[in-house]
Amino acid sequence: MTPARIDGLQYANWSEKIFRQMREGNVDAVHVTITYHENFRETVLNIEQWNRWFEQYPDLIFQGHTAADIQKAQDTGRTAIFFGSQNPSCIEDDIGLVEVMHTLGLRFMQLTYNNQSLLATGCYEADDTGLTRMGKEVVREMNRVGMVVDMSHSGERSTLEAIEHSSRPIAITHANPSFWHKALRNKSDDVLRALGSSGGMLGFSIYPHHLEDGSNCTLQSFCDMIARTADLMGPENIGIGTDLCQDQPDSIVEWMRVGRWTKAIDYGEGSASNPGFPPMPDWFQDNRHFGTIEHALSATGLSASDIQGVMGENWRRFFLNSFAAEG
Amino acid sequence: MTPARIDGLQYANWSEKIFRQMREGNVDAVHVTITYHENFRETVLNIEQWNRWFEQYPDLIFQGHTAADIQKAQDTGRTAIFFGSQNPSCIEDDIGLVEVMHTLGLRFMQLTYNNQSLLATGCYEADDTGLTRMGKEVVREMNRVGMVVDMSHSGERSTLEAIEHSSRPIAITHANPSFWHKALRNKSDDVLRALGSSGGMLGFSIYPHHLEDGSNCTLQSFCDMIARTADLMGPENIGIGTDLCQDQPDSIVEWMRVGRWTKAIDYGEGSASNPGFPPMPDWFQDNRHFGTIEHALSATGLSASDIQGVMGENWRRFFLNSFAAEG
Repeated sequence: MTPARIDGLQYANWSEKIFRQMREGNVDAVHVTITYHENFRETVLNIEQWNRWFEQYPDLIFQGHTAADIQKAQDTGRTAIFFGSQNPSCIEDDIGLVEVMHTLGLRFMQLTYNNQSLLATGCYEADDTGLTRMGKEVVREMNRVGMVVDMSHSGERSTLEAIEHSSRPIAITHANPSFWHKALRNKSDDVLRALGSSGGMLGFSIYPHHLEDGSNCTLQSFCDMIARTADLMGPENIGIGTDLCQDQPDSIVEWMRVGRWTKAIDYGEGSASNPGFPPMPDWFQDNRHFGTIEHALSATGLSASDIQGVMGENWRRFFLNSFAAEG
Repeated sequence: MTPARIDGLQYANWSEKIFRQMREGNVDAVHVTITYHENFRETVLNIEQWNRWFEQYPDLIFQGHTAADIQKAQDTGRTAIFFGSQNPSCIEDDIGLVEVMHTLGLRFMQLTYNNQSLLATGCYEADDTGLTRMGKEVVREMNRVGMVVDMSHSGERSTLEAIEHSSRPIAITHANPSFWHKALRNKSDDVLRALGSSGGMLGFSIYPHHLEDGSNCTLQSFCDMIARTADLMGPENIGIGTDLCQDQPDSIVEWMRVGRWTKAIDYGEGSASNPGFPPMPDWFQDNRHFGTIEHALSATGLSASDIQGVMGENWRRFFLNSFAAEG
């Protein structure tokens, strides 16, 4: 079996160019964000756009539903696109929409995006009160239908409670360890240990605000951090989750941060002097650069099979256990 | 292979009782109406209700997606439920919702329900202008994804144009021939011949307003009509489509007729003196009575294999060619 190359999160301004770059980079599967603050109907409009891309570029991409689609992608030389949501807005206040969204292909859903949601507390709130009553019900329903709980943008307590409450391993698809770079979005050793010991997955982000030295972060520092995290939470529980926001205009990062929840500007991880998307490190500009990371990892002391795990095989195994209905 | 027993349309006030009666009647598959005038979001709420029934009664019913689910129903002693819509309200003004609704399981959609729609003209309008511009586009999209065009409530010209324009055979899931009983909802010889010669299907309705002598229609008259229709359009192009509205309160037939399109009352096939659901004939009260029809058909001169066709095998073959995506 050819080792898989899988990205645990992207939110690009999708185009034929980017789909072709996925192929050039031999990326077999990508978890793509299809929605942030959009309600159900608006999210369905985004799915309609994806359906048109699938119809338009059948030789490059197709919609992924199960882990078997990774093999199908490898066999047919295409990239399997798995849908995810960064906020639970798409299920509104209606637990029945969990199964509906799963039927439409949603395989990951964050319980929060920075703020308090109906389900849990985001990492930017002053107080984290953990999973709400509805949050516990929705996690159970996500477990039942086969939708991954993603806590990338959640607070510490909420994340620990999601790990505890979920009957299936959860994911933090795009974040890094706080021990390497302190940021509200990065995760404590406690969270990472609990995540690893429960069989969950961390996807390493290359979004500059999550990196030591930001856009100037070196590839060696990034790879050393991966090796240290493998020691902390197990080499089988880590992968890549680039958070690549390629070709997006800055209006998009404003939508991500502000949605419709405030009339003011919120800079999130940015600032008034640096409000837009930060430039990606020179060693990872787009999907063609996964090989650069894979090559650099071999200098870290990780074994060849551990590196295959990080580059995609760990996500493949996680997908296999995550997307089918229970029972 | 055990001959299938399939009903081409029901809209009951669903309950465990009715699902058990489907099993008692050995009904392998039913096309159920899940929506009339409901918009997309409201239709999804109806799907959520069905999802709860599927979760609640897994030993009795499951959602049908492909013709293979008929065999699965027979193998597991359950009834496969196939979704349909009696009006295109669920796709609103958005052709992208055709594929979304198909992903959610919709396998039949009427282009009209009595009135003019965005797609075509209903059988109660004074003038039938045929398929609209959007109607032609939507038929093409339904052909592409594998959703059956159902013209049960459409006008004559619209029906003939749908047969002509559709690249795949269409259905009239629940109506009878006008030659037997003149009613706006019943179909002319021209329509039935065009339907049969294009490989389409007619499902015979047992809704009293479509029957000779209404609720007093005899089983023999009904079966003789079936035999005559077999002569007219071919024994392989006919099946059952009972239009069973079991246990529905009269408020439902008012919703079916009036929706939100008028503030007045429209009696449809009823009248001010007979506004509610008419009583079903004594020989067909519920799903346990399919055997009664099958038995009576043997007195008509139809062959044993033609009778198997009418009772379900013709629908099975039609499902096989209708529900998968093109290409």
